[in-house]
Amino acid sequence: MLEDQIAFLVEADKLNTVLRRNYTVTADRRENSAEHSWHVALTAMLLAEYSNEPVNVDRVVRMLLVHDIVEIDAGDTFIYDSVANTSKEAREQEAAKRLFGLLPESQANELHELWDEFEARATPEAKFAEAVDRFVAVLHNYATHGRGWKENGITRSRVLAVNERVAEGSKTLWAKIQEMTQEAVNQRELAE
Amino acid sequence: MLEDQIAFLVEADKLNTVLRRNYTVTADRRENSAEHSWHVALTAMLLAEYSNEPVNVDRVVRMLLVHDIVEIDAGDTFIYDSVANTSKEAREQEAAKRLFGLLPESQANELHELWDEFEARATPEAKFAEAVDRFVAVLHNYATHGRGWKENGITRSRVLAVNERVAEGSKTLWAKIQEMTQEAVNQRELAE
Repeated sequence: MLEDQIAFLVEADKLNTVLRRNYTVTADRRENSAEHSWHVALTAMLLAEYSNEPVNVDRVVRMLLVHDIVEIDAGDTFIYDSVANTSKEAREQEAAKRLFGLLPESQANELHELWDEFEARATPEAKFAEAVDRFVAVLHNYATHGRGWKENGITRSRVLAVNERVAEGSKTLWAKIQEMTQEAVNQRELAE
Repeated sequence: MLEDQIAFLVEADKLNTVLRRNYTVTADRRENSAEHSWHVALTAMLLAEYSNEPVNVDRVVRMLLVHDIVEIDAGDTFIYDSVANTSKEAREQEAAKRLFGLLPESQANELHELWDEFEARATPEAKFAEAVDRFVAVLHNYATHGRGWKENGITRSRVLAVNERVAEGSKTLWAKIQEMTQEAVNQRELAE
């Protein structure tokens, strides 16, 4: 039992080898998915008041601690890469099966359910979790003078189109994304 | 309000620049305190059944998401460095004041209380959080063939003396620490 849990935790640690497209705020290097998972969980804890609907914040936090673990096998799929996104679901389902399957059955199910809930974006918790996940990605780009956006040729209209559904989880965070990206355009850190 | 929270979150992201003495499981580099905070929160979520006393796991998770933020100003204090540990409390109190103070007052208080609770090690949640925090450090050393131990000249008797209080939070995790370190000695990855 404990042995299986340890095997999973040792495997899960590899999430720190998965690199995202955005940079850490100090901007010396790209952010990895483990430190992102911490930062986004902390963000959810502190910004819960901006959820459109009341949420169980602790469930949002748990969901965010688990949401990227599948990337250990499936890799981080860049949100603006529409080709890679077509195969994303199948790759991640396989990964979830293998990775969560390392755990004792009841915990494997618990983590799989948290991840399924996040992916389905149907509950208030999942909608808010996704809104926060996307918000921090924009924030990291904004805070690093658009470094990730510039490197990948992303425009403001693209950012807004891809992230529009943030509004389903949090109108406040969606408004803030609009504001930050407008400011980035004004400062020539993001193309229109 | 949101502006203050964002300022805090941008500052908190610097936790990924604080390096610990142990290595990531893939062992290519030292672990930073942000990815550690994620890994230890996930560990608490999955190993809660081994707490000596019943705990509110979500509070343990919140505590662990926050417990190292003071290191942004105070640095990571190596658990086996007894000189640095004498000044640790004062340095970290200053850091908590500045960092949590970036937040709106009620949230600044909430985070400060979580951190104080963790440091005081009086509640079942804090005792278990500390047990898990120390357990993962031993696990990372064990999983990397004692790399951090060897580099810092740490012996098994030192590991056991410094981590003895893990037993106050979890007898099971304390037994596992004894087992892992004995195995590491047998494999010549840790001096006696």
